[in-house]
Amino acid sequence: MNNRDKPILLVALGGNALIRKGERGTVTQQFKNLVLPIRQIAQLSQDYRIIITHGNGPQVGNLLLQQESCSDVPKLPLEILVAQTQGQIGYMIESTLDSQLMDLGVHVKPLISLITYVVVSEQDPAFLNPTKPIGPIYASKKQAPSGYPVAKTAKGFRRVVVSPKPVTIIEKREIKKLITAGFIIICCGGGGIPVVREGRAFQGVDAVIDKDLASAKLAQEVGVDIFVIATDVNGVALNYGTKDEKFMRRLNIGSANQLIADGHFADGSMRPKVEAAVQFVRDGGKRAVITSIKAIESAVKGQAGTEIIV
Amino acid sequence: MNNRDKPILLVALGGNALIRKGERGTVTQQFKNLVLPIRQIAQLSQDYRIIITHGNGPQVGNLLLQQESCSDVPKLPLEILVAQTQGQIGYMIESTLDSQLMDLGVHVKPLISLITYVVVSEQDPAFLNPTKPIGPIYASKKQAPSGYPVAKTAKGFRRVVVSPKPVTIIEKREIKKLITAGFIIICCGGGGIPVVREGRAFQGVDAVIDKDLASAKLAQEVGVDIFVIATDVNGVALNYGTKDEKFMRRLNIGSANQLIADGHFADGSMRPKVEAAVQFVRDGGKRAVITSIKAIESAVKGQAGTEIIV
Repeated sequence: MNNRDKPILLVALGGNALIRKGERGTVTQQFKNLVLPIRQIAQLSQDYRIIITHGNGPQVGNLLLQQESCSDVPKLPLEILVAQTQGQIGYMIESTLDSQLMDLGVHVKPLISLITYVVVSEQDPAFLNPTKPIGPIYASKKQAPSGYPVAKTAKGFRRVVVSPKPVTIIEKREIKKLITAGFIIICCGGGGIPVVREGRAFQGVDAVIDKDLASAKLAQEVGVDIFVIATDVNGVALNYGTKDEKFMRRLNIGSANQLIADGHFADGSMRPKVEAAVQFVRDGGKRAVITSIKAIESAVKGQAGTEIIV
Repeated sequence: MNNRDKPILLVALGGNALIRKGERGTVTQQFKNLVLPIRQIAQLSQDYRIIITHGNGPQVGNLLLQQESCSDVPKLPLEILVAQTQGQIGYMIESTLDSQLMDLGVHVKPLISLITYVVVSEQDPAFLNPTKPIGPIYASKKQAPSGYPVAKTAKGFRRVVVSPKPVTIIEKREIKKLITAGFIIICCGGGGIPVVREGRAFQGVDAVIDKDLASAKLAQEVGVDIFVIATDVNGVALNYGTKDEKFMRRLNIGSANQLIADGHFADGSMRPKVEAAVQFVRDGGKRAVITSIKAIESAVKGQAGTEIIV
């Protein structure tokens, strides 16, 4: 099959693809964890044109803790820390994919990792209320560092920051050209670096964009065929974590919106994933699947995960 | 002129393009300083195909200080910090260039900032001896943090790290394709992320590559026409900083090598710049110029800087 005829697959990797729950996140752990999702993506790259996006929650949280511990150098705003994690994780994913492609003996493809920034609106009400969890997970609110907003998430207590909605991906034209030219692209790390447009210039803002919502926006803007959100659970479940937990193999947009409205999915966790998948399918995307990191290949084949359908 | 017929210009920006001597390096200072070189590059992009590389000395040093001040999160090796600075500085340069192109009303070009890693040799003798200055500049050895190798540089005392020679740029094929496709490319930040090839995999190494030498290697591997090294002095001078200082408008390879051998140029400062320019011209490059950040356009026109000639 000619490369141009292959469907475009976007895989959004959660931060837990690098740092799993309970891990401190040494560089050795992060590289080791990446092999599981990246080997599957290397296999898939034979049949699909590939875009990889990724989260950065644990990494950006670590950078924030580090810069707050050090009075010797000027502190940088959140968007610069997001940019730093794009460098770090982009490199880790790219070099792991490079190695896996060599190991599989797959024909060498052009492969690049791109800095990506994303326009948000100054009028976004999110600027009034921090909701996006970043950094380490704490068992109790007391253990979390004081002086910052902290919220209870599905995984435990975490610091939260402002998280506006993505309006448009600045590099969408470039990414489209690159996909057409046969490149495998790693981009939109950590949801992208948030900027507002001020006249004829861009201005960074002290915030973090949800990576699933940014990935959905990118998927729509560049015309992705299959959008896979890979996380640490098998897919979408009702009554998650209780004895009444009910895994859903398929979920239509109407039901999904109702479940979101009824508060079934945790903020900053499953909720933005379902919203992102719904948004993609609603705007004309062919397939969106929420699945676990170990089942990316199966999910693409329609054998795992929760399929969001019209 | 058709884009494919335009000469390829590579501009290597020193870390001082973002943080000037005596500055602490706030994000506001860094963005402000970038306007001077980037506006010139925006102008030049009308007549040249452009690659921008950049240093990261102050930024990677700051990250090192920050992570050493914080016991709560795992420390990362130097190559990961280099990757982080590629994200940070790549974003700052790209968004500044984006804004300057908009401001000049120049036709929008595809513009991307790439993560770049660079192969070094495990046998490089540099691994035995740290020489590359990073981080803040101190007036005396006493003021520098203890417990690390510190060396006297042209600018003052600085911490030094291992700095192997670049062997090949991993993304050279990708960069060549992108230049041909009309992209303006920001890459090879901080000299690239150093890796060694181990069988069918890449392995990062705890080191920093000199950005001028990495830029010269990239320039040769992708077929750059003009290689400009932009720094904080007007060009190459004999007896720099003394009353006998003598600026050189032109310097041939033979004389340059002799002056290097005689110890005329400071390690980790002017010396690698002259070596990089010599290497580029020796390997068949058309023009190499060492100039100041404010004179990039003049240097390209042949009206400023030190031209390294065969």
